[in-house]
Amino acid sequence: MEETQCQDPIAELIVTYKELNGSVIEELYEEPSPLEFMRYVAKNTPFVVRGAAANWKATKTWSAKYLGEHLKSETVNVAVTPMGNADAPTPHGPDGSLVFAKPWEEDQPFGEFLDYVVQQERGDSLQQNTEVRYAQTQNDNLRHEYASLFDHVQRDIPFARIALQRDPEAINMWIGNSRSVTALHKDNYENIYVQIAGRKHFALLPPLCHPCVNEQRLQPSHYERCSSVSSGGRGEEEEEEKGTEEELLPLRLELETDGETVPFAIWDPDRPADNTTTYSHLAEPVRVTLEPGDMLYLPCMW
Amino acid sequence: MEETQCQDPIAELIVTYKELNGSVIEELYEEPSPLEFMRYVAKNTPFVVRGAAANWKATKTWSAKYLGEHLKSETVNVAVTPMGNADAPTPHGPDGSLVFAKPWEEDQPFGEFLDYVVQQERGDSLQQNTEVRYAQTQNDNLRHEYASLFDHVQRDIPFARIALQRDPEAINMWIGNSRSVTALHKDNYENIYVQIAGRKHFALLPPLCHPCVNEQRLQPSHYERCSSVSSGGRGEEEEEEKGTEEELLPLRLELETDGETVPFAIWDPDRPADNTTTYSHLAEPVRVTLEPGDMLYLPCMW
Repeated sequence: MEETQCQDPIAELIVTYKELNGSVIEELYEEPSPLEFMRYVAKNTPFVVRGAAANWKATKTWSAKYLGEHLKSETVNVAVTPMGNADAPTPHGPDGSLVFAKPWEEDQPFGEFLDYVVQQERGDSLQQNTEVRYAQTQNDNLRHEYASLFDHVQRDIPFARIALQRDPEAINMWIGNSRSVTALHKDNYENIYVQIAGRKHFALLPPLCHPCVNEQRLQPSHYERCSSVSSGGRGEEEEEEKGTEEELLPLRLELETDGETVPFAIWDPDRPADNTTTYSHLAEPVRVTLEPGDMLYLPCMW
Repeated sequence: MEETQCQDPIAELIVTYKELNGSVIEELYEEPSPLEFMRYVAKNTPFVVRGAAANWKATKTWSAKYLGEHLKSETVNVAVTPMGNADAPTPHGPDGSLVFAKPWEEDQPFGEFLDYVVQQERGDSLQQNTEVRYAQTQNDNLRHEYASLFDHVQRDIPFARIALQRDPEAINMWIGNSRSVTALHKDNYENIYVQIAGRKHFALLPPLCHPCVNEQRLQPSHYERCSSVSSGGRGEEEEEEKGTEEELLPLRLELETDGETVPFAIWDPDRPADNTTTYSHLAEPVRVTLEPGDMLYLPCMW
């Protein structure tokens, strides 16, 4: 071990943890038993089960076409941001200081939302230089907003329910495209993530890498869609009325000056040279890509 | 929460932990399943199973008389200290600075050892103002030194073997009386302790009370029994030869000046006003007394 590390117990801890645990995720090919799962919980160690949900009805049937038809008449809550930066540290104002940016939320007909997400991903020109839409509510939406899809998935994850002696607190479905990025964050509960369609890339850090992620208290803020009324004189208003649906009113980041600051990591493993602490260079995220049917156990505080 | 605590995150952590966990140990009345046990391991939480070993042959048969007959011809390793302070912080030298005192170890015929321990406990005058003897080797002695007793106990603790997927690293039997005290310490492995005869009082602290226990690097030292040769002239030697077996040569604490210092807690929950840190007053040890047949799970680092 290098001498500089020995002189700093925090650096030594991070390096030793990496040496003992590696930065490769454990891969299983079948679901663990409750006892096997509990061993991972006890070690606070993530794992991926390849193909665990390969035979779920959802994995077998959901496609943009299928979902579009199934939810044709529904209206869904959509998080809208200029760059996919929902709940993310975001530069604001003339000095570019970071604030915690929450998305603009609006209800959209499901079909319209899905078309937008698909066309943007496909590269259609209309959606290229504009906002990112992500259905990402975390209010148990698969048992509420999207309840008609709930019997396409398992009602719960039996090994986790039995091991933890709890039903899931929330079962959420998220729909987005490759523009949606979730900023580095942690939850104080166990998560099981199942990929149904598409691909998601995770970069995971253990809790003891906390000194690497540069947690700061950020001023809260949220996006608002500029209203047509605020845009001024009569002439402009008329122009808007003539516009197509895709001519979107822009989003504006509004500071919540009376809101409590939010403690949040501002170091980003995908831009490792920015917003560093003296420990950031020691962090080696565990990277894993989920394919359709894969299941990820995300221990609490990772 | 008091303001002073909010200003010190370590104090706040200790107080919050106590609020969430209490300082009473969980009591079970039957052994947990491997999965149930693993939940305790995951929470790093101790528990006691009352009467778990009540029907072991050992619990049913072992007494001083029985063991004396069974091990009559054996010689055993005995740890000898002036005050029961084996592996304990001990004042040394004119300034009374604390050193880490290891016991004097010697082989004794089992019967002689056991008689001494029993008579001292009983209050027989010969053993009152003299050394404390404790059979306390930790070298898997029940499968070696005392192997003839091994089939009086379970070969292992099935719920722990199955949950942890390991056989016990060591199975140790310890024999002492109420003078033997084990100083506050921690192990980096899981322990299951079973009381066969007599009673043992535990004072347990969770790992995050580390700031309370005043860990210091202590100079290692060990007791040595003064040899008769070193005691001087001919006259004295003759006197010793006339002495009874119980006229013991005294123990002397020898500093190991070339030994590496030992990190060790010098705060003692039974003398809470001494050797304190600013956090010691926040520690509330979980106290539990084991009766014959009781089993204690001691999580690692407690």
